[in-house]
Amino acid sequence: MAGIGVGLIGTGYMGKCHALAWNNVATIFGDVERPRLVHLAERDAGLAQARAREFGFARATSDWRELLSDPDVDVVSITTPNQFHAEMAIAALQAGKHVWCEKPMATSLADAERMEATARRSGRVAIMGYNYIQNPVMRHIRTLLDEGAIGTVNQVRVEMDEDFMADPQAPFSPRSEKASGYGALDDFAVHTLSLLWNLFGHAEAVMTDLGKPYADRPLEAGGRRAVENHDQANVLLRLAGGISAVLMVNRAAFGRKGRIALQIFGSKGAILYDQERMNEFQIYRATDRAGEQGFATVLAGPQHSPYGSFVPAPGHSLGFNDLKVIECRELLAAIAGKPYRAVDFSEGLRIERSVHAMAQSFAERRWVDVAAG
Amino acid sequence: MAGIGVGLIGTGYMGKCHALAWNNVATIFGDVERPRLVHLAERDAGLAQARAREFGFARATSDWRELLSDPDVDVVSITTPNQFHAEMAIAALQAGKHVWCEKPMATSLADAERMEATARRSGRVAIMGYNYIQNPVMRHIRTLLDEGAIGTVNQVRVEMDEDFMADPQAPFSPRSEKASGYGALDDFAVHTLSLLWNLFGHAEAVMTDLGKPYADRPLEAGGRRAVENHDQANVLLRLAGGISAVLMVNRAAFGRKGRIALQIFGSKGAILYDQERMNEFQIYRATDRAGEQGFATVLAGPQHSPYGSFVPAPGHSLGFNDLKVIECRELLAAIAGKPYRAVDFSEGLRIERSVHAMAQSFAERRWVDVAAG
Amino acid sequence: MAGIGVGLIGTGYMGKCHALAWNNVATIFGDVERPRLVHLAERDAGLAQARAREFGFARATSDWRELLSDPDVDVVSITTPNQFHAEMAIAALQAGKHVWCEKPMATSLADAERMEATARRSGRVAIMGYNYIQNPVMRHIRTLLDEGAIGTVNQVRVEMDEDFMADPQAPFSPRSEKASGYGALDDFAVHTLSLLWNLFGHAEAVMTDLGKPYADRPLEAGGRRAVENHDQANVLLRLAGGISAVLMVNRAAFGRKGRIALQIFGSKGAILYDQERMNEFQIYRATDRAGEQGFATVLAGPQHSPYGSFVPAPGHSLGFNDLKVIECRELLAAIAGKPYRAVDFSEGLRIERSVHAMAQSFAERRWVDVAAG
Amino acid sequence: MAGIGVGLIGTGYMGKCHALAWNNVATIFGDVERPRLVHLAERDAGLAQARAREFGFARATSDWRELLSDPDVDVVSITTPNQFHAEMAIAALQAGKHVWCEKPMATSLADAERMEATARRSGRVAIMGYNYIQNPVMRHIRTLLDEGAIGTVNQVRVEMDEDFMADPQAPFSPRSEKASGYGALDDFAVHTLSLLWNLFGHAEAVMTDLGKPYADRPLEAGGRRAVENHDQANVLLRLAGGISAVLMVNRAAFGRKGRIALQIFGSKGAILYDQERMNEFQIYRATDRAGEQGFATVLAGPQHSPYGSFVPAPGHSLGFNDLKVIECRELLAAIAGKPYRAVDFSEGLRIERSVHAMAQSFAERRWVDVAAG
Repeated sequence: MAGIGVGLIGTGYMGKCHALAWNNVATIFGDVERPRLVHLAERDAGLAQARAREFGFARATSDWRELLSDPDVDVVSITTPNQFHAEMAIAALQAGKHVWCEKPMATSLADAERMEATARRSGRVAIMGYNYIQNPVMRHIRTLLDEGAIGTVNQVRVEMDEDFMADPQAPFSPRSEKASGYGALDDFAVHTLSLLWNLFGHAEAVMTDLGKPYADRPLEAGGRRAVENHDQANVLLRLAGGISAVLMVNRAAFGRKGRIALQIFGSKGAILYDQERMNEFQIYRATDRAGEQGFATVLAGPQHSPYGSFVPAPGHSLGFNDLKVIECRELLAAIAGKPYRAVDFSEGLRIERSVHAMAQSFAERRWVDVAAG
Repeated sequence: MAGIGVGLIGTGYMGKCHALAWNNVATIFGDVERPRLVHLAERDAGLAQARAREFGFARATSDWRELLSDPDVDVVSITTPNQFHAEMAIAALQAGKHVWCEKPMATSLADAERMEATARRSGRVAIMGYNYIQNPVMRHIRTLLDEGAIGTVNQVRVEMDEDFMADPQAPFSPRSEKASGYGALDDFAVHTLSLLWNLFGHAEAVMTDLGKPYADRPLEAGGRRAVENHDQANVLLRLAGGISAVLMVNRAAFGRKGRIALQIFGSKGAILYDQERMNEFQIYRATDRAGEQGFATVLAGPQHSPYGSFVPAPGHSLGFNDLKVIECRELLAAIAGKPYRAVDFSEGLRIERSVHAMAQSFAERRWVDVAAG
Repeated sequence: MAGIGVGLIGTGYMGKCHALAWNNVATIFGDVERPRLVHLAERDAGLAQARAREFGFARATSDWRELLSDPDVDVVSITTPNQFHAEMAIAALQAGKHVWCEKPMATSLADAERMEATARRSGRVAIMGYNYIQNPVMRHIRTLLDEGAIGTVNQVRVEMDEDFMADPQAPFSPRSEKASGYGALDDFAVHTLSLLWNLFGHAEAVMTDLGKPYADRPLEAGGRRAVENHDQANVLLRLAGGISAVLMVNRAAFGRKGRIALQIFGSKGAILYDQERMNEFQIYRATDRAGEQGFATVLAGPQHSPYGSFVPAPGHSLGFNDLKVIECRELLAAIAGKPYRAVDFSEGLRIERSVHAMAQSFAERRWVDVAAG
Repeated sequence: MAGIGVGLIGTGYMGKCHALAWNNVATIFGDVERPRLVHLAERDAGLAQARAREFGFARATSDWRELLSDPDVDVVSITTPNQFHAEMAIAALQAGKHVWCEKPMATSLADAERMEATARRSGRVAIMGYNYIQNPVMRHIRTLLDEGAIGTVNQVRVEMDEDFMADPQAPFSPRSEKASGYGALDDFAVHTLSLLWNLFGHAEAVMTDLGKPYADRPLEAGGRRAVENHDQANVLLRLAGGISAVLMVNRAAFGRKGRIALQIFGSKGAILYDQERMNEFQIYRATDRAGEQGFATVLAGPQHSPYGSFVPAPGHSLGFNDLKVIECRELLAAIAGKPYRAVDFSEGLRIERSVHAMAQSFAERRWVDVAAG
């Protein structure tokens, strides 16, 4: 049986990451047909040709609409800049393709809503690239919570921090423009919300403080320009079931490179996780013998499905790109009509709404309920 | 020259801790006269006698007012339950004694205000037992911030967590009664505020969410009783200079035993600290060579004054009780009219006000400014 | 230009790992032609077909000699059980193929010597799969040592520990038979020697103690059988230049899953590494300011070549399988006649000799010099 | 009842540490009579007076023999430089005093043997200051091993490293003279042997390699002088019951400040400890549920006797000086004829013999059995 036909739009880093996933998913899992890498689109025709050769795609085009009209293409990876997501995803769905779109959905809530509506009507699979939930460690944490391993959860803290905006002398960039979005809320809060959703469901109410570490930044041409959005956000949340939570994101946090730290406290124990050490988690069991209770650092291994499909020995580490292979496997399951775990456009829209509610809360200095949509 | 005459009221754990401090301060520092342990008060006369012998005090009494009238007593340690602080501290100050009072100041804001007013008028030294600021590591962090080692601070997160209220099956205790205070705010937020004050000054505005992990708890006699205060608090803060901060405290956080975690981000680096590993801190310098930048874990040593007065070699660890000896040394400096670093009644009152503002914020679901007093 | 033609013999875990590397090397690096996956050999014909489909190979065979006679095959990956390495590698070299052979070289020193001699005469590239040296972190450590970042190295400790033999109730397996080799020396010491070689050169003299934690193990059929080799080895070494070192390996070390811990001390600092956290290393610089000296934990990032070819952001983690892609890139460089870094058959033979010298040292209870070969 | 009468000879750092212990032991434990600080000896009469006032001793002398003839003195702390230990300890025992002597016993094996013989004949208590075994965490580890919590131990690694000799530009000091001893063996190996003894019994056979990181060092006056002993030692050991072990000590290990790292592997789990984080240990239990097995980091607390005598709450840290208070409590138990745990002169002599055997092993390049004595 022939494998699914893949189209890829965009060949920047996330495009490469999708290409690796499509190339590896059959080798890793062995239980899906090897996808056929059919068509690749990149704005520049020469680059498109080069990337197709590197990534192993059969055809290349500089016109993404041509890719969408290719009948051999069953599913389309969209990895272009955010402002193109809506147009491309909607066109792909309307052309009858399944869609795998990088996050965030779109640059406006209205666009995200149109994407979600189109996907709903299309009957096609449409999922977002929230790959952190695919980490075997994160999936195992979800299983532990479902089992009640730490009892009823009553408090959650989540932090996501990097430092690419930390240097006050770095020149003003589009990332600091209002047009690019709220700042840390768009870049990071969406990721943390995907993790919270996966474990606890969506946020129900939010209370936000935003922080702007640097009022302005130097222009390359001389002079300075005022920063128009916020590199930091601190949010009080109420999750489903009344769990109280705090969400903190900061893209100007010196020293943090890829931190996504979770602290989950329950009535029988606690679980900790940090994405900078994505191959481990910590668990504290109140039922362990007094005198030997402590956070156990558990290294990822075959018990944490599907780690074993990558490496048979525990403690040998998966990498960031491997998570995308797992996401790809979930996408194929969805297309095959099987149970899957991924952020589809409906859940993705809810995440977008949460982010907008956070921004509104800051503007109005009050708690804001997140519309259930 | 004879050393200062010491009276100690209360001989529970904090009383013992004060006794150790008074016993050790001269041996450790060598630059103060050895205090004379004059008089000890404990409610039960027999216990008072026994403790005086154990702790090395010359006289014992079951009547604390008798101790206050002892002319040999120059300074009084007050380590009794919180509800007695106001009466004893005010009486001691009025008797012309210096006062070293355990935190929190009092069980009502009005009492704290009377204590502060009395201290101000008395001309005596009156300090609170906020010993975490005395950790040589914490003092060094302050020096680093003052020097600008991590540039201008723009974001702070502080957490204080323990798990003595984490077990939902633990019987209802007075700690869960409204009369004992707000809960985690009184127990823990005051400590974290003392640390923030020491490094950045007082909180200016607060926005609070409180959490109650367990609605009720079992009674020893059978049945259940509703919990009346909150084991968890999450607070958005604005510190002096507009620094945005988050304060999180939880006395029901399984696995945490004595955690006070600080994350401080600045324009040139970052500093981390965790009280559970009180003999180290971490610093990230953006000026280190690219490729070798990372958080350096610095072990406490003689460079971190006054560590060297306790142990001459680095990496050999001070303990919790040692911090009280340093606090005692600061108290003696204050009495001698020298510069000192400790939370006096004036700063202590401001901390109490911050806590009350936090509670008000939760009740009114809005940002509350902290009165400067 | 057509990419190199690849043959793969063996499709167990390491076969899969090679397949992933051949599939990904062009996508990741973009500067090599995409290899053509030509021929795959697996003992069972049906399995060979299935794996070829999964892994993306064009042809499949149950006869590895058929693969060697395929003129489209330029390079052969040998990932079969150890006892087949010698025969296959020699035949492949004699057929004019380049060879990429998993470690260890062979089950006897004589075989390893024949392999090395054949490779030398063949003019083909023949490298071993010692992939840990390819970790960008490890490569960066090498650069740091070369630069003198920690001065002259004077002491090294290396540990490699896992726990797959730790359970005394696990049934007797071929791993405990004398025929399978010395035990921990073959399984682990070779890996640590590849790391030491990469950083410091080969061992010159060794003094060994071996440990047998369990004298016998249960047989599946009942009864017990004596363990014939050693799960533990502790070795004193002298490295080139007289550096004193200790090598400790243990495949019965409960709790260790993939630990390869290096401690390197020099005249200006120290470097630490642990494979269980393969995306970080620690460096201590004696030149940092007093009071802020400590081991800095550096997260892997684009400064550590070739990390950036996998992920553009630091702190996002590579995985075990990614190291094989880097090794593949080095192999292609070697074939192209460019500088490369990998363990070729000549260095591999020296590693084998070191292991045999270690075993001899234990048997004769004395220091043994390692023949330079 | 009057407390025991204490004499203290030597008031450097260890003298201060003993003074603190004598001052605190009754306050901390409450179950021993408060010792009377009777007599203090220090070479300089003025300094003796000053220290007596600081430390709380009633009398001071510049002649230690005068202290020994004071009938009020029941027990003598000897904290002078090593070369005086033998003469003072023997004189004290002959004067009918109990003795608490800092380690190492003496600068020659013959002296140590005379000390041990004198102690044995005297009927007095004579113990050495090996305080690391008194850490509540270490005592708990011993209990765990006795209970079989990790099964039968089959492998041990112990490291002790500091960096006070790491700087090659530091001037030549007496520590590098042959007269001061073997170097790291005397400074550090004795400590690690005390820990091993406490947990497993004495070493039975040793095989040693010594390392000299710097052949010579600069003289203050100009020129250089050859280093006469070894800053590094690596030792293969066989402990009682055939446990294989490795002991590594290095006083020139940059970055290490007070590291004493233990790794203990058994048939049911493993235990880790590091003195730089003396308030925690790690335990791995093979019986934990698969998927959640990992090293649990246990923070010291009241379950680890006698931590609770210092602080009632877990996770609040003891310090180095606190260990001496526990040792003092053991000494008082010994004097009272009760069970105690400390290194007496008999065990201390065995430790000295082990060290000499290590040196002999290096000189003769062979395994050496340690005489049982």
